[in-house]
Amino acid sequence: MPLPILFPIPDLHDSALDQRLQTLLDNKTKPVGSLGKLEALAMRLGAVLGTDAPVLVQPQMVVCAGDHGLALRGVSAYPSDVTWQMVENFLAGGAAVSVLARQHGLAMTVVDCGVRHDFAPRPGLIVRKIAPGTADSSVGPAMTLMQCETAIANGMALVRELPGNALLLGEMGIGNSSAAALLLSRLAGLDIAVCSGVGTGLDTAGLERKRQVLRQVLALHAQATHPLDALMAFGGFEIATLVGVVLQAARERRVIVVDGFIATAAVLVAEGLRPNVVQRCVAAHRSTEPGHALMLQHLGLEPLLQLDLRLGEGSGAALAWPLLQSACLILNQMASFDSAGVSRKDGE
Amino acid sequence: MPLPILFPIPDLHDSALDQRLQTLLDNKTKPVGSLGKLEALAMRLGAVLGTDAPVLVQPQMVVCAGDHGLALRGVSAYPSDVTWQMVENFLAGGAAVSVLARQHGLAMTVVDCGVRHDFAPRPGLIVRKIAPGTADSSVGPAMTLMQCETAIANGMALVRELPGNALLLGEMGIGNSSAAALLLSRLAGLDIAVCSGVGTGLDTAGLERKRQVLRQVLALHAQATHPLDALMAFGGFEIATLVGVVLQAARERRVIVVDGFIATAAVLVAEGLRPNVVQRCVAAHRSTEPGHALMLQHLGLEPLLQLDLRLGEGSGAALAWPLLQSACLILNQMASFDSAGVSRKDGE
Repeated sequence: MPLPILFPIPDLHDSALDQRLQTLLDNKTKPVGSLGKLEALAMRLGAVLGTDAPVLVQPQMVVCAGDHGLALRGVSAYPSDVTWQMVENFLAGGAAVSVLARQHGLAMTVVDCGVRHDFAPRPGLIVRKIAPGTADSSVGPAMTLMQCETAIANGMALVRELPGNALLLGEMGIGNSSAAALLLSRLAGLDIAVCSGVGTGLDTAGLERKRQVLRQVLALHAQATHPLDALMAFGGFEIATLVGVVLQAARERRVIVVDGFIATAAVLVAEGLRPNVVQRCVAAHRSTEPGHALMLQHLGLEPLLQLDLRLGEGSGAALAWPLLQSACLILNQMASFDSAGVSRKDGE
Repeated sequence: MPLPILFPIPDLHDSALDQRLQTLLDNKTKPVGSLGKLEALAMRLGAVLGTDAPVLVQPQMVVCAGDHGLALRGVSAYPSDVTWQMVENFLAGGAAVSVLARQHGLAMTVVDCGVRHDFAPRPGLIVRKIAPGTADSSVGPAMTLMQCETAIANGMALVRELPGNALLLGEMGIGNSSAAALLLSRLAGLDIAVCSGVGTGLDTAGLERKRQVLRQVLALHAQATHPLDALMAFGGFEIATLVGVVLQAARERRVIVVDGFIATAAVLVAEGLRPNVVQRCVAAHRSTEPGHALMLQHLGLEPLLQLDLRLGEGSGAALAWPLLQSACLILNQMASFDSAGVSRKDGE
């Protein structure tokens, strides 16, 4: 089931560049390795942008929203209407991600990928609605192949229109922590009990009910083992659109700043479709949603922040953004031992 | 042995304000508690500044530097000359803390509290030199009572001259991870083996030698159990000056952003001298230096970042700074459920 629009994502590995980056970092006026994860981050940003002097320009926060038919089965603590209400809140500038994007000068685009609501047009909103919510995945596939391919193509087209060399992933969709848990369970081969959590705030009984529903959904779609089949089976439109965003950003060698559980699920699918995508990714934050740590581990991504967030929206990506800028500045602005006249460690 | 200049630090506890802050956060358009540690941070900033609309103004990075007589005993991987060389690097803008402070618009003051070098005067440098390095604490006390009191008074006077309502602590001093380990061991009653680590980069043999030296120092100063006596015994001048900085900032209800192992040692001493200081503190980062986690735990502080840094200088405090700003913005700019017309969780 090949998507006509897919293309290989080349392996970024460039040992000469890695060596240049490592030497630069080791010559900065600090003990070798003493900037910890910031140094690993600088290496990655250099590798993605193909330079030993990476500069991040015109970062774009893309928040994809969609509704889920499965939400009718009571898998979320919130009613589906919250999806469109929060989209309004994003556009009005009052949501967490709006506030944090503004703080850090991140341009923000909100994409209606399939919200059960008609929005009045306005700046900052792009309507790429596949349908008013996915179908209920406990009854049949969340979407058709045509819908899935269209959503992925939408995401790819969106990125082509956006400037800059860094994308931050955000999402909104009541019920989408269920879709992410289903994708994790299927694509990583893990039991649904370890993949699913309270989402935005289920109680214990609610979580038990959610897990029962998700087991039924998995059983119904036992054949959906290919990443694209799993995406069609479990949804949602916002995740499929983000898969396209991730693939196009990877193709263009943009830095992809991955947010929480749901945004990471889009990376999981994209990596399943085209290996090497994850080389372009920076994991911003590890959510309290228990599946998220497993998903990051499966992808080989180590998160920068652990602030016990469980909000999504792109909030973790926005919070981590200054660290990416710091990593670039370490490379570009810190003095070397020689230039600053600082003595090295005894014996070096 | 009362310092004439010391004063009580009042308990900040204000349950009416706490309640207002909690209600504000719970009414923001997000699931209750879903911003995790950012919400706890917002509560603390509100408590320190005594308002439910905290705004951080004119943040000041204060980097205190001093040399340590004990460095002659080979407790550091770097020669003592690196202290003054790094001070020059701070002032020239090429050190990690210089780059990060610039990134975040933090005013930076470098204080020579006792470096073994004479600096040419220049903007950004304040000379409050007690002596060219402390005495060797393996032979006698690192400093006299007069020196210790003068350094603390210097730190207090410094803060009185600085504008703004937030202070970020930084330090430089070859050998000062030994002083911090000694203070932790004595004031928290922990074995020196768990309090000391590789610092800026000792090898295994070097760490073993460091621990042997530190055991001798502890035995020599077995009577130095009061925080002020321990500070005199173990040093250094930069830590003593930071103790004054912390005490004065606490008195003025400024937010104190604590950096790594050595800056936290200054808070440990300050809290020992005047309880409630720690209520004004935000722990920025947990260093890989093993004693740091124990020290933070002892003080009841939970770090915002764990980036495996082991640099000091104030680098962790600078990296965490945007999170403090985010916490304020969450309170001041996020919409409430009512104002945004967003539905609450079912049943709330």
